[in-house]
Amino acid sequence: MPSPDAPQILLALQLANGYGAQPGAWRMPGTDPSAYTDMDVLVRYAQTAERGKIQLIFLADTPVLDVDLEQQAPHHATDPIVVLTSMARSTERIGLVATSSTTLNEPFTIARQFKALDIASHGRAGWNAVPTSIPAAAANYGITLPSRQDKYERAHEVVQVVQALWGSWEADAWVRDVEGRRFADMSKIRPVNLRGRHVASAGPLAIPPSEQGQPVIFQAGGGDAGLEVAARYATGVYANPFTIDEGRAHRDALRAAAERVGRDPDEVKLFAGFMPTVAASRRAALDRRRILDESVDLDQRVRYLGSMIGLPLTPAQLDEPLSADQLAAARPSPGDPRAPHALDVAQEGWTLRDVLAHGVIDYHPVVPGTAADVADHMQEWFEAGACDGFSLAVDVYADGVDTFVDEVVPLLQQRGLFHTDYEGTTLRDHLGAPAQYGTDPRLS
Amino acid sequence: MPSPDAPQILLALQLANGYGAQPGAWRMPGTDPSAYTDMDVLVRYAQTAERGKIQLIFLADTPVLDVDLEQQAPHHATDPIVVLTSMARSTERIGLVATSSTTLNEPFTIARQFKALDIASHGRAGWNAVPTSIPAAAANYGITLPSRQDKYERAHEVVQVVQALWGSWEADAWVRDVEGRRFADMSKIRPVNLRGRHVASAGPLAIPPSEQGQPVIFQAGGGDAGLEVAARYATGVYANPFTIDEGRAHRDALRAAAERVGRDPDEVKLFAGFMPTVAASRRAALDRRRILDESVDLDQRVRYLGSMIGLPLTPAQLDEPLSADQLAAARPSPGDPRAPHALDVAQEGWTLRDVLAHGVIDYHPVVPGTAADVADHMQEWFEAGACDGFSLAVDVYADGVDTFVDEVVPLLQQRGLFHTDYEGTTLRDHLGAPAQYGTDPRLS
Ligand SMILES: Cc1cc2nc3c(=O)[nH]c(=O)nc-3n(C[C@H](O)[C@H](O)[C@H](O)COP(=O)(O)O)c2cc1C
Ligand SMILES: Cc1cc2nc3c(=O)[nH]c(=O)nc-3n(C[C@H](O)[C@H](O)[C@H](O)COP(=O)(O)O)c2cc1C
Repeated sequence: MPSPDAPQILLALQLANGYGAQPGAWRMPGTDPSAYTDMDVLVRYAQTAERGKIQLIFLADTPVLDVDLEQQAPHHATDPIVVLTSMARSTERIGLVATSSTTLNEPFTIARQFKALDIASHGRAGWNAVPTSIPAAAANYGITLPSRQDKYERAHEVVQVVQALWGSWEADAWVRDVEGRRFADMSKIRPVNLRGRHVASAGPLAIPPSEQGQPVIFQAGGGDAGLEVAARYATGVYANPFTIDEGRAHRDALRAAAERVGRDPDEVKLFAGFMPTVAASRRAALDRRRILDESVDLDQRVRYLGSMIGLPLTPAQLDEPLSADQLAAARPSPGDPRAPHALDVAQEGWTLRDVLAHGVIDYHPVVPGTAADVADHMQEWFEAGACDGFSLAVDVYADGVDTFVDEVVPLLQQRGLFHTDYEGTTLRDHLGAPAQYGTDPRLS
Repeated sequence: MPSPDAPQILLALQLANGYGAQPGAWRMPGTDPSAYTDMDVLVRYAQTAERGKIQLIFLADTPVLDVDLEQQAPHHATDPIVVLTSMARSTERIGLVATSSTTLNEPFTIARQFKALDIASHGRAGWNAVPTSIPAAAANYGITLPSRQDKYERAHEVVQVVQALWGSWEADAWVRDVEGRRFADMSKIRPVNLRGRHVASAGPLAIPPSEQGQPVIFQAGGGDAGLEVAARYATGVYANPFTIDEGRAHRDALRAAAERVGRDPDEVKLFAGFMPTVAASRRAALDRRRILDESVDLDQRVRYLGSMIGLPLTPAQLDEPLSADQLAAARPSPGDPRAPHALDVAQEGWTLRDVLAHGVIDYHPVVPGTAADVADHMQEWFEAGACDGFSLAVDVYADGVDTFVDEVVPLLQQRGLFHTDYEGTTLRDHLGAPAQYGTDPRLS
């Protein structure tokens, strides 16, 4: 049992399109096929997560329709601000975080909308500041993607202008003195007047401080350039390491980078993407995943698995394991960090259907198993220093969010790995993030 | 009594900063001085308006802090999308309309956010498409204001791209066929691929139709160029005529312009700005206005009145009427449509304090009086063809919205001038606006 003030796991719940992290989620029994547009459904998931004391909801976002809707639901929310505002109105504690592109949006728009969300939620908003890497998203804004260097140069400018706008009111500028006839102290509200190579803004923003001062910055992906953004500005970082070693390397690099810019490395938390499928037994969890796999595009999945391990696999072999000859001929794709694990699972003798049900081709590590299996995995990663918490991609929200909250959360709590109540009322409280107003003085 | 299917008055309730249309509203008894950031308060006003069957809430907006906050509250909401989404979650019928600048925003952002609001509100969203005319707002986006011609050229492009994005899903594209394994019919979801001189977008939007198909377009102000935008795209037009003649001229011009582009003129509704102050008697209404005037900047107001009627007035004369000599010397400012009315009121012998309490320097026509006085004014304007409805700027929301709903609305209903229930569930239903999906085929 860890000591009472040892660090504990932080949890983010990804709630993307309203159905679940698996492409077939929209077709599952219990799922409302209209959940994508039904704020009532989305709000219920947020409430369930809050019941489980999960620190925050995370909506990844790219402003593009980049999926074939014949079989699958869109990847992202109709609009993150609309969805998170809906959640803010019906929850009280849980943090509300979404991506907004530093490549496609003006800093004034980002600053205003996330600060307004921060106000509406009484200090629970966070912004995941990422450049956009999908050309079709840029085309929706009438531009072609800038070079990687320009994108990251702009990302730095956008975050700095946004934070400066957030800081354009001092913490006590909004006096509201009815007797004294003074609405605000204008000497404590200042313009920004920043001009960079890519963006500029005069300011001030017309929004006073929230209960947490200003929203929390998150960052995701992007190699060294992304690490630099994260190290300078972020409180939370989303990553998708596939192994403990990868997670540890990323987290160590992040902490070192934060230290280089003068921050306490404990101020930056790495959230590892993780896809749990919880059921009464491992077999039941695999069966749940099989139904999901079969609900959309199983044939494609077999071929994809084949290319990952260097074998020409076809659906005809779905109910058989790999033969000894196949195992001998297999060559895990060197560029794919998931490939060795896929081959390991295949070597255990599972049928191809079950190999896939292990989630070996998914874009997050997958654990199909009991609540204890899932908690064990999280404990192992956390205690090995592979992450500070997890960004949960629940397979099917309709029942999966409840199951996680009712079965996995109590286990983590019993093990002293997860808090039993929110530490405060704001997202900064939940993350132990220091108060900040405007740009971080250590960075200027 | 008008015949049952005669046109009736349409009502929009302006809910700007949460306090009221008068600068001193934030200091009034009963007003929560934190209403600007308190969604609960704003939501209550929207619910009251809905109780009164008011057709829509309107949030004017310019993304700039253009007021001295020492004495006054900001003019606009923290963020219109956040505020309207909050209202959407706690109301069921009332329309939700806000301004978003065609000069400063990308069409993809506008299309996505208003359509997401339309989805969240089950078909109640509207967008007031106006170019920005305040240089400081442009500076918040790092640009200088384009020429008037470029601004309006861009406005046309932005509205067309937004409507095309809204129409990128056909009405029945979202099949959600669980058994048939078909989420959507991709043959009915098409890219936009529009490129103008100012903006461009590839599309499609990732959002299916709402209950009203797509949001309703509004327009405001802007002379001939604005009229052209309104005539082509708008269902509702906000205007601030100061007299019946002005209103009639604007409405006639608008209807003629709509006809020229092939639309039925009845499809375009003019909302005249109107600022009622309702009390038990005219004297009581004037006293209410006096308290409001005195709560902020009465001295300035006296001097402003003086410049309007060509006299050097000072606060020393506040409790006296204009002398005969002053009345003889007065010269109403020729460029100000409010000036003749101001002089008329002064000639009735009111003290300067009471002249101001008549609202003669306000930016809307003001009626301080009983509910019947207010209803009479509205009836007169409406029956004279000066407008199709009113955009209500209520002096102090804390009690003024309830008073309007409880006292004026029933009078209008008794006179057969205002509906007694919503005609349907969507904003298009409330406005009698024809169904539309994508750009209006008559305009292409
Ligand atoms: C866990 C995780 C979450 C991400 N979330 C988003 C997102 O919400 N929106 C987005 O456009 N990109 C997202 N990305 C992509 C990265 O921001 C980045 O674009 C990608 O890693 C490519 O980086 P590059 O453009 O620097 O090459 C995410 C990446 C990771 C690893
Ligand atoms: C009733 C009314 C409402 C308006 N609402 C807005 C608004 O919400 N935001 C805004 O920036 N301008 C608003 N305007 C200003 C006009 O859109 C326009 O900018 C102004 O009339 C000047 O026009 P011009 O730029 O064509 O000269 C409004 C004007 C009127 C008459």
